[in-house]
Amino acid sequence: MSCVHKFKGADVSFEWQGVVYQDYGSSAAQGVAVQWLIGAQERAPHFAMRYFEIEPGGWTSLDSHEHDHGVVILKGRGRVLLGDDEFDLSFGDIVYVSPYELHQFRNLGPERLGFLCVIPVKGEAE
Amino acid sequence: MSCVHKFKGADVSFEWQGVVYQDYGSSAAQGVAVQWLIGAQERAPHFAMRYFEIEPGGWTSLDSHEHDHGVVILKGRGRVLLGDDEFDLSFGDIVYVSPYELHQFRNLGPERLGFLCVIPVKGEAE
Repeated sequence: MSCVHKFKGADVSFEWQGVVYQDYGSSAAQGVAVQWLIGAQERAPHFAMRYFEIEPGGWTSLDSHEHDHGVVILKGRGRVLLGDDEFDLSFGDIVYVSPYELHQFRNLGPERLGFLCVIPVKGEAE
Repeated sequence: MSCVHKFKGADVSFEWQGVVYQDYGSSAAQGVAVQWLIGAQERAPHFAMRYFEIEPGGWTSLDSHEHDHGVVILKGRGRVLLGDDEFDLSFGDIVYVSPYELHQFRNLGPERLGFLCVIPVKGEAE
């Protein structure tokens, strides 16, 4: 089902028409909210695209799983753990997380850290 | 192969470390250049992420194919044809192009139109 989700702006967080904020639902994360931009609602068969925002001081869960991630930083400043390495992140940075790579995103700045995250459909749960 | 492609900036076009601009290679397109941000170089098994820039007055080819697209507008102003509909586009807008939906992106503004485009790996050719 092709569609356009118009960008509504960024008063507090980035928001889009036709998209609803959801709790991330992981007890191992802190201050993380997610919007599903492309997924089951659009009947996308191959991949999903989510938008995450992490509050100042927050983090995503420390994960390692079969599905990979494609991440694009859209606002704020943070750091990603990728295996044994850490990288500082800001606008425009691209992070590719391979299958089974240990990873965690943390917000290190005073504003919310916002990023797109693409996953294959079979990895929608995390 | 997990990695970070640091954003280098946007003097003329958006650029990233470790990423090379390529000609789009379609004679049915006008003024289109593409960078592969996540793909074969990263050994990504499920999806690829590209960044397109279209020059003022340019357009992508009029396409309809099995693989779907997830698009995020990052700069400029344009319009997308989706089946029988057209939508104006600017920063932050999300476009989902379903499998076999007729689609074409056009730059309608004075600056380059830049957008991310996700595809499943089996659709890397277009």
